[in-house]
Amino acid sequence: MKGKDFLGIRYLTRDDVENVLKLSFYIKHGHRDVSEKLKGRKIISIFFESSTRTRTSFEIAAKNMGASVVNIDYHQSSMVKGETHKDTIVNLTAMKPDCFVVRNANSGYPVFIKQFTDVPVINAGDGLCEHPSQAILDLLTMYEVKSRIDNLKVCIIGDILHSRVAKSHIHLSRMLNWQISLYGPKTMLPREEWLSNIKIEKNLKEALHGKDFIIFLRIQLERKSGEDIPSLQEYSRHFGISSPSALPKDTYVMHPGPVNRNVELSSEVIDHSGKSLIINQVENSIYTRMAIYSFCLNLPPEEA
Amino acid sequence: MKGKDFLGIRYLTRDDVENVLKLSFYIKHGHRDVSEKLKGRKIISIFFESSTRTRTSFEIAAKNMGASVVNIDYHQSSMVKGETHKDTIVNLTAMKPDCFVVRNANSGYPVFIKQFTDVPVINAGDGLCEHPSQAILDLLTMYEVKSRIDNLKVCIIGDILHSRVAKSHIHLSRMLNWQISLYGPKTMLPREEWLSNIKIEKNLKEALHGKDFIIFLRIQLERKSGEDIPSLQEYSRHFGISSPSALPKDTYVMHPGPVNRNVELSSEVIDHSGKSLIINQVENSIYTRMAIYSFCLNLPPEEA
Amino acid sequence: MKGKDFLGIRYLTRDDVENVLKLSFYIKHGHRDVSEKLKGRKIISIFFESSTRTRTSFEIAAKNMGASVVNIDYHQSSMVKGETHKDTIVNLTAMKPDCFVVRNANSGYPVFIKQFTDVPVINAGDGLCEHPSQAILDLLTMYEVKSRIDNLKVCIIGDILHSRVAKSHIHLSRMLNWQISLYGPKTMLPREEWLSNIKIEKNLKEALHGKDFIIFLRIQLERKSGEDIPSLQEYSRHFGISSPSALPKDTYVMHPGPVNRNVELSSEVIDHSGKSLIINQVENSIYTRMAIYSFCLNLPPEEA
Repeated sequence: MKGKDFLGIRYLTRDDVENVLKLSFYIKHGHRDVSEKLKGRKIISIFFESSTRTRTSFEIAAKNMGASVVNIDYHQSSMVKGETHKDTIVNLTAMKPDCFVVRNANSGYPVFIKQFTDVPVINAGDGLCEHPSQAILDLLTMYEVKSRIDNLKVCIIGDILHSRVAKSHIHLSRMLNWQISLYGPKTMLPREEWLSNIKIEKNLKEALHGKDFIIFLRIQLERKSGEDIPSLQEYSRHFGISSPSALPKDTYVMHPGPVNRNVELSSEVIDHSGKSLIINQVENSIYTRMAIYSFCLNLPPEEA
Repeated sequence: MKGKDFLGIRYLTRDDVENVLKLSFYIKHGHRDVSEKLKGRKIISIFFESSTRTRTSFEIAAKNMGASVVNIDYHQSSMVKGETHKDTIVNLTAMKPDCFVVRNANSGYPVFIKQFTDVPVINAGDGLCEHPSQAILDLLTMYEVKSRIDNLKVCIIGDILHSRVAKSHIHLSRMLNWQISLYGPKTMLPREEWLSNIKIEKNLKEALHGKDFIIFLRIQLERKSGEDIPSLQEYSRHFGISSPSALPKDTYVMHPGPVNRNVELSSEVIDHSGKSLIINQVENSIYTRMAIYSFCLNLPPEEA
Repeated sequence: MKGKDFLGIRYLTRDDVENVLKLSFYIKHGHRDVSEKLKGRKIISIFFESSTRTRTSFEIAAKNMGASVVNIDYHQSSMVKGETHKDTIVNLTAMKPDCFVVRNANSGYPVFIKQFTDVPVINAGDGLCEHPSQAILDLLTMYEVKSRIDNLKVCIIGDILHSRVAKSHIHLSRMLNWQISLYGPKTMLPREEWLSNIKIEKNLKEALHGKDFIIFLRIQLERKSGEDIPSLQEYSRHFGISSPSALPKDTYVMHPGPVNRNVELSSEVIDHSGKSLIINQVENSIYTRMAIYSFCLNLPPEEA
């Protein structure tokens, strides 16, 4: 038994989520020392999309635990010679790494490559599908504020259709009995079948009303979402907030980043220490990803 | 004495080859523990061509032995400012690394840079010239099947002209008294002087007949060989095999990768566990490259 | 107190400079063993310009001290998605690295990002402004030849305007009471206010006369300086030297590299072991940068 995968929230049990969350919290607060637990282990990181925070955070998390990280730069890989994804994974598997961390523009990519490898695979974002480590680090951030993970009231605002973060949170909401709702331009809402039991908010005021957390999503200008809105200014007026005072008391703002400043959120909101949890999310990304490595590589709980 | 180079099979003695082979085998089977032998050592990896398996395998091998690896990304190096290869090597040498691993499109590149450095140089592929670590890992794979390295019957099929792997194997064949033969389109056979004492097969049936190993070579679509054949389909019909049943009993298929699936070999052949040694080759690449580091960095045999 | 910055010579005291210099010298000669002093520490390296020697030398220096290095490749970073420099730095800071090493084409970049981070920042070159680690490693090289750092006679020849190395040396010259002079095409001399108390040499012969060290600067063909001279041949005739015999006795040649061979200096001069200190500079870069890490990360002197 080589370890466990981390392919998506939909593939995890509630126990899995709670175990990873708890371990993240323990690592953060020094109750677990995992600093040398991955000594001699090798993590292969394969990112097919641009990333600073996710790639770097997975790399730092691994090095915090003493692991070696091998980055595959796809621009200089054999894929430019036409090698198939299957062959790349099969060959890398033959080199006996301890874990793959993969990001790919194709939805379902991590599940696809699992056909060809018994090495644990961590999904660092696949197309429009899932970004499960982001969901768990968001959950840790929520837990720190509300001291619970069940029955939260959460609204996700923005480009739901193209957001893998939103998809992972929708799965989480079902597992944890959240009251979840969505708000965004009609062109950016997901297909019908996704929406069973999910409320679509009618306007920004209602979207913000009575929520514990508002998760704003990035307009992915470099991808497709730019085509779905008439102008950034109009988007911002209807689906963004420019002042912390727009937020009800006890409602916090989150964003998976990178933020388009003054599109989804004004600088005043982003940098507001009482209302914005955006930096907490980034800080928690390290502890959560250390916990995910522990989970996937089967570090025994007492030892981990 | 800083160590030894690994520039090509032509520069090695039979003793060198046997020592590296033996050590690869011992490392693979746990008879030698080299896991911390390169602690504190620095390997500089300079790849001027795309590569997944070779670059990654050299990096993992180094990290398996506790070395640090510094990757020079030539797109972001001073070479884009016009620095000469000589100056790059002289300057990197002044930083006192323990070893260079180099791949370059120019034949003879590792020998060229040896004029300017006393740091051990490992050739990870130079133009049309040699790929010596591939030849040794192939040899380990052959030894595991046949329990000997002498007097093997080997046919190499495909683009011999542009293949550095083929060149290294031709040198090996002379050292180890192989019965070696070549088969491929006339436009892809090497110059006359290379061919002394080497049989050219007349057709595929004869090429496969009575051999221990058939080494299929990649059609390098990204390089020159695409121009030398009329169509991939016709190439495949004359110089590829599509079914394991085409192979005589006791004849194994090898390929240095990346394979063009359904050009040189069908998926059925590639993935046939009884006939294809392709994954064994990749797996052995790690142990062989660990042994090559030991050889170049003069790790004493008893200690290594 | 997280540590100290290394933003430019202008921000350092004479004590700072002497401490870093002394430590560089001790590390080089084995009087200080810092080989494991950065074990468990993480250095984030962010280079927005091509570089071999500086980036590699900072990476090797860090690994010599047992640190982990995380390279941010800006081509694959979130900056290509439009993330601001501020957000990139704030987010990376949240991941709790021990140090940033930054190179950027914008003058003042390291000072700019210090507004957003309490992590020590090392300036590895900012626009036309400073390259302080280069100045200190040059100083170590000078000290090894003259056994003193005060009252040196130094002339800098070439593209002073676009050279951050020259700017750092001008600051150093004021701190250490050097007799400094400049020589170059009028189009490549800096603005008036820079030139107070600095002699501009009238011709090459005077520029070379009576100096301890001549620092030749690179014509930055990939940047702006190509536009400021009519031809490389004419530049070379007036501002370069082609023979070691052009240099007075006891005058040494330095160059921050990469050299344009046969533009600033002929190969005969570059490679002249008695006159050229260029390789010594590169060699000293490692020890100096190890000392800079010690300085910035507050390694206690007795321990460091």
